[in-house]
Amino acid sequence: MTPQKIMTDDRVAALHETALHVLEDLGIKITHQGARDLLVKNGAVIDGDMVRLGREMVEDAIATAPKSMVLKAINPDRDLTLDQNSLIFTPSGGCPNVYDRLRGRRPGDAESYTEMAKLVQSFDVLHKMPVAPEPQDIPLHERHIFTNLIQMTYGDKPLGHYARGQAQTDQNFEMICHGLNLSDDAFKSNIWSSTVINSNSPRLLDDTMAQGLMDYARYQQLTIITPFCLSGAMAPITTEGALVLSHAEALAGITLTQMTNAGAPIAYGSFSSNVDMKSGSPAFGTPEHVRLQIGAGQLARHIGIPWRAAAGSASNATDAQGAAENLMGIWGAIQAGANIILHSTGWLEGGLTVGFEKTITDLEQIQSMAELCQKMEQVELQSVFDDIASVQPGGHFFDTAETMARFAEAFYPPLVADLSNHGTWQDHGGLTAEERATTIWQDCLENYTRPQHSAEIEDRLMPLVDRLKSQGGAAPLT
Amino acid sequence: MTPQKIMTDDRVAALHETALHVLEDLGIKITHQGARDLLVKNGAVIDGDMVRLGREMVEDAIATAPKSMVLKAINPDRDLTLDQNSLIFTPSGGCPNVYDRLRGRRPGDAESYTEMAKLVQSFDVLHKMPVAPEPQDIPLHERHIFTNLIQMTYGDKPLGHYARGQAQTDQNFEMICHGLNLSDDAFKSNIWSSTVINSNSPRLLDDTMAQGLMDYARYQQLTIITPFCLSGAMAPITTEGALVLSHAEALAGITLTQMTNAGAPIAYGSFSSNVDMKSGSPAFGTPEHVRLQIGAGQLARHIGIPWRAAAGSASNATDAQGAAENLMGIWGAIQAGANIILHSTGWLEGGLTVGFEKTITDLEQIQSMAELCQKMEQVELQSVFDDIASVQPGGHFFDTAETMARFAEAFYPPLVADLSNHGTWQDHGGLTAEERATTIWQDCLENYTRPQHSAEIEDRLMPLVDRLKSQGGAAPLT
Repeated sequence: MTPQKIMTDDRVAALHETALHVLEDLGIKITHQGARDLLVKNGAVIDGDMVRLGREMVEDAIATAPKSMVLKAINPDRDLTLDQNSLIFTPSGGCPNVYDRLRGRRPGDAESYTEMAKLVQSFDVLHKMPVAPEPQDIPLHERHIFTNLIQMTYGDKPLGHYARGQAQTDQNFEMICHGLNLSDDAFKSNIWSSTVINSNSPRLLDDTMAQGLMDYARYQQLTIITPFCLSGAMAPITTEGALVLSHAEALAGITLTQMTNAGAPIAYGSFSSNVDMKSGSPAFGTPEHVRLQIGAGQLARHIGIPWRAAAGSASNATDAQGAAENLMGIWGAIQAGANIILHSTGWLEGGLTVGFEKTITDLEQIQSMAELCQKMEQVELQSVFDDIASVQPGGHFFDTAETMARFAEAFYPPLVADLSNHGTWQDHGGLTAEERATTIWQDCLENYTRPQHSAEIEDRLMPLVDRLKSQGGAAPLT
Repeated sequence: MTPQKIMTDDRVAALHETALHVLEDLGIKITHQGARDLLVKNGAVIDGDMVRLGREMVEDAIATAPKSMVLKAINPDRDLTLDQNSLIFTPSGGCPNVYDRLRGRRPGDAESYTEMAKLVQSFDVLHKMPVAPEPQDIPLHERHIFTNLIQMTYGDKPLGHYARGQAQTDQNFEMICHGLNLSDDAFKSNIWSSTVINSNSPRLLDDTMAQGLMDYARYQQLTIITPFCLSGAMAPITTEGALVLSHAEALAGITLTQMTNAGAPIAYGSFSSNVDMKSGSPAFGTPEHVRLQIGAGQLARHIGIPWRAAAGSASNATDAQGAAENLMGIWGAIQAGANIILHSTGWLEGGLTVGFEKTITDLEQIQSMAELCQKMEQVELQSVFDDIASVQPGGHFFDTAETMARFAEAFYPPLVADLSNHGTWQDHGGLTAEERATTIWQDCLENYTRPQHSAEIEDRLMPLVDRLKSQGGAAPLT
């Protein structure tokens, strides 16, 4: 689909200029000494921990940032190209809690994280392994080891990690090299890990995030640099104002990566929505959210860098609200020309909880959108004519030659939608989509089989895992 | 938004040619003698009740069909322009049953029809009065009188009617003239009624529909000519095949109206989706539905005529499935450049039931889309800069000058979405969107007030209504 616009190209350029002006004249606060030093060495001006970035530095960074890259997967068939033509869906991230109808809402734990990894692995439309729910029963200093191990041994898709300090990142990367039998060079010459770096809007990059940007840049791994700008709260109340702030922060992050290592892979991120004026909570799937997505897409294309958007829902339940919020975000992201859509399944409560049923009902949405984005089959118009001619007025096409040749593959087969009539639906218990989704995730987990090579990778990894744990893992940088 | 395309312009022209070829070489079955005679007089070739339409007739009809028109409302502030830039939302049509959480699923009746009229009148985003649910407790020969009376005395938006034979249509139009104090000429020189005419796909136009097309054309009222083509059932299984059939049938209907009365107002209609291969039921909000919407939009623009699409859901419940199906159809229609979107709220069970709660949750969707389609406010970039400058890094924008100036109107205020956090949500009963919607429609009905002039119109109408009823109303043409 052709991306929509909310602004003229001239206006996009003017917003970009204003963001450069913000970075040059107001600057961004960077608490990380090493990051500040690096930027100063490259021409930034500092005043305490405020760093002002000249437009030339920023333009250099935009120039060296790669415009196309490959995210490697354990299974090479699942390698992902990330460029301005990509459409990559990823599952919920950042969720401390988990919910399903059978066990209720609870803190994320090792069991639910493992189950989510199995679920995500089971659906091709989800292109990356999950980072949520947070397995809170695993101590913080070992949690990265656990989630990485699960991703690598229960799935074969591209991996994702939190960047919570250099020590954890080093251990994550060591596990990848060891588990996949990669030399340091082989690791660095491809993207094996991606992470999301959120600035602390407005205009603040904290130690952990700056460290993550630099660590990932140094190892040539992918950072998705994403200000989380809530219009009316951490960002200006106007759409254009929020876009300028978000753009400025993303550019600052990009600049830090490229000054660390010119050519390091990055994606331009935007996750801007509005705050709900009634509750003060973040809102998702609102008109403002979609408008900000479309504007961010225009800015990303202005600088020519692949970009990420996000869907998600604020709903507390897997209901009509939650479905509409997520689907608004999915459609908005696609109309905005997003290349990678985070939180495309499962988010409840603005990301505080990932839902198992919500994951299933949202999967239907992204499967439908993925199908819609496929190229339409073009048919011979003579055979269209013949097909129509072969059916008498008032008749049906159930068994024409064209139908018989295509019916098995013609239409998207629903995952959770039940299209039976009211009587049949009632005879089957009159279940809502949420209730049916429970059976679906249960079946998925029951029928899950580990991918090829998982056992082999696990055998290679376990001694390393034991060693890392016996060394105390690594505490997160806080 | 700029309409999307699934085909090149050349391909659209080729599909149009194929449809002309279908009409010219295969023809369409028209059971109505008068319609056949009229078409023959204008050059059609008949063989029994098969009518073959030459391309010149069709092209003449496209040329005389108006490209822009005004749908009059009782309240002139609610007059609607229908052209290729319009975006008009209308509520559920065609539903025999009604559902709400308090009273359950039941046949539509006078009470629920009246309540639906009040609900629809209460929301500006719904642009026309409803024709559903069907008030089944009113005998068929009086039902048109009842629904027309309710529309005219409980609302002030443009009216809609079923065309179920000339006698009923005449009585409907007589009521409008009498109730609104219009001369015959004043009535005919404006559009006061619109109706939907569905062909009986494939390639069949029955007596009632042909009669409706001619009646409405003669009185210069609006017909929305809409083949209901289910791909794989009443239409070819391929997207392009279904588009060709639907287009041919729409063109046949348009031709009949223009041969009846050149310049009679019409809209090009399309309501094509796929059949569910598992249940045989119509599916809505599927990738195929959206693709057919986008293709129909391209064909409509090819012939330059404003066009209608439809949303709707097959779900049996006001749940995540129903929400996603409807929103897919709404987004699809808007991306297809539709000018009028029918069934944009309330459809359950593929239209067999209209839901009160479903109407409310779908209203949130179309209110959001309507808001999104508003032009974005452009702000001074200097004031954006100043706003950002006024907040320290890590601070907030809750009380900046820009925020204070705008916060009351800045964001779309949710109708049914609850964005409170999990604890607050639970404290308020942990209600789903569907459950909250019950309170909303109840409040709407409780706070409903009849529009200005309603009593006056009712006073004028009641003697006519009594007379029409005492004459036995009018039986529908079957």
